[in-house]
Amino acid sequence: MSDLRQDITTKRWVIVANERAKRPSDFISKNAQEEILAHRDDCPFCMGNEGKTPPELFAIREGSDPNTPGWKVRVVPNKYGALSPSARLEVINPDIFTSITGFGAHEVIIESPEHNLSLGMQPVNQVQKVLETILQRLRTLAQDPRIRFAAVFRNHGIAAGTSLAHPHSQLIATPITPTNVQEEIEEARRFFDDRVHCVYCYLLKKEHDDGRRIVFETERYTVLCPYASRFPFEMMILPRNHQSSVMEDTRVENIPFLAEVIRKALALLHFTANDPDYNMVLHTAPLRDPCLDYFHWHLEILPRLTTAAGFELGTGIYITTAIPEETAQYLREKLKEMEAV
Amino acid sequence: MSDLRQDITTKRWVIVANERAKRPSDFISKNAQEEILAHRDDCPFCMGNEGKTPPELFAIREGSDPNTPGWKVRVVPNKYGALSPSARLEVINPDIFTSITGFGAHEVIIESPEHNLSLGMQPVNQVQKVLETILQRLRTLAQDPRIRFAAVFRNHGIAAGTSLAHPHSQLIATPITPTNVQEEIEEARRFFDDRVHCVYCYLLKKEHDDGRRIVFETERYTVLCPYASRFPFEMMILPRNHQSSVMEDTRVENIPFLAEVIRKALALLHFTANDPDYNMVLHTAPLRDPCLDYFHWHLEILPRLTTAAGFELGTGIYITTAIPEETAQYLREKLKEMEAV
Repeated sequence: MSDLRQDITTKRWVIVANERAKRPSDFISKNAQEEILAHRDDCPFCMGNEGKTPPELFAIREGSDPNTPGWKVRVVPNKYGALSPSARLEVINPDIFTSITGFGAHEVIIESPEHNLSLGMQPVNQVQKVLETILQRLRTLAQDPRIRFAAVFRNHGIAAGTSLAHPHSQLIATPITPTNVQEEIEEARRFFDDRVHCVYCYLLKKEHDDGRRIVFETERYTVLCPYASRFPFEMMILPRNHQSSVMEDTRVENIPFLAEVIRKALALLHFTANDPDYNMVLHTAPLRDPCLDYFHWHLEILPRLTTAAGFELGTGIYITTAIPEETAQYLREKLKEMEAV
Repeated sequence: MSDLRQDITTKRWVIVANERAKRPSDFISKNAQEEILAHRDDCPFCMGNEGKTPPELFAIREGSDPNTPGWKVRVVPNKYGALSPSARLEVINPDIFTSITGFGAHEVIIESPEHNLSLGMQPVNQVQKVLETILQRLRTLAQDPRIRFAAVFRNHGIAAGTSLAHPHSQLIATPITPTNVQEEIEEARRFFDDRVHCVYCYLLKKEHDDGRRIVFETERYTVLCPYASRFPFEMMILPRNHQSSVMEDTRVENIPFLAEVIRKALALLHFTANDPDYNMVLHTAPLRDPCLDYFHWHLEILPRLTTAAGFELGTGIYITTAIPEETAQYLREKLKEMEAV
């Protein structure tokens, strides 16, 4: 029998369609992958092609000049940015057709000089540099009081909405707090009002005790398949201690541990599901409210092996045929295999 | 310069990225279409293959027996239904891992005996029969007090989440009101509290006076490109008089007019954008609250010419590069061409 499951943190419902349930392995594409080279002369993100992007905003380099080779991670404005820091910020016609001028930022974090090394395939110290770069950009953007929220996300593959193969993440800073973020925070606030407890901390304890949906845990982080997963192989990474913003997690001693966890989760997805297209999305407190008692930052890994249809678009209810407990078990087994290699 | 636009009815934001703006025609796929036949022996929805579906729930027939040929529109349970009317309804563990047993309904409305006649290509009296069938099913399901909401939607093409080419819509009836529906109704309620006016009625008047986003209007219905469109060629069909539920629109004299408007909007999309994949989604009041003063039923046509990426999934903010006013103008011009043919 099918179940409708409610996600406690957002009130979002999903339908787990047991009767058409598939094994986790049924979602995996068997297509042969064409080989991707480590360098392409025509890729704007490859080393040596720095002139093909707008001037860089930040880079981790060992001595070389800006906008020349010799970098490890590089941040540039998106050439076709959806928002711009040079636009003035003005709210227009705050009535029925409200708009805001396109003030904000849209940045690309080039995660490696190498064209074909996706984030999960990179050495831990490179993932660490990517995290340091993102946190550096968040700290810089947080100083502008006009910016309310910064969305950090990674689109991997065509089904996840990217056409550029070179490994990169993006950051879009907005002058408003997006509706989804507001709703997520509002649900967390309601739970806190009722039970005087962070809903994510409560969930982490319950998930740890139950164990069936845990993929792996470290001293500082938990990786799990959410109870109300919307996508096959969906995973969530959370800090085990309460932190509302990823910017609280910037103490130097934490970053290598977070880098290791992200790398391991992405490598596991790559290994288990044949390098599927996916989005990775950071959920963190708005920049103006960095220390909420009731919100808890986390990363969502959302593989794009299925297509949202009219029902999902209209209701927000996803129909999934992957059972999260089975998926987590499958991932735990594959992790053992991967670590034995 | 880009704009962030807020949809007044849902508070949902979209970014209209003017700087990367495309002409409406740039979204149109130039791929040659392979010919689809009017009948396929292996299609479970084609005439003569009635035995390949579960027994029918309803049909418009001229004298023939159930589950035999001779029908015009046919409703069958989805063979792999996400929810089932024979499941008991029980709420389990209403705490952190809340679930409900898979009670509900998942029905397929086969819109034509012909395999290759998409809804917009059918004669008006056939579209009318489809509408009569959907309303009949809604009326039947509304009699079950355990059913709170019925989602009616149409997935056209692979990018819209369907693999079955034979023209059909679906109906999923749920024992809960979906979150998206709740939020949409809640926003409408807030507007009514503030201004003692239905937000959709208010919007219709403003859009009519402005005219730039109107695709076409009839005496009873308006078709427009929403101010905060999320998708290229997005359209919305609304009754011009206040009606919270499509079930209020069942007076015999209205259905032919609604059928004509739906057929015309879909034919226009087909003709203008080269038969793109799309979802069509009915937004109507929950079955238990059919006469709300503040909600106003409507149909959304959502072409799937772009892919939602990490930013959209994380924030709910869509980035679109199609400007609704330009799209509406383009559609008005194409409508003139189409009607001249």
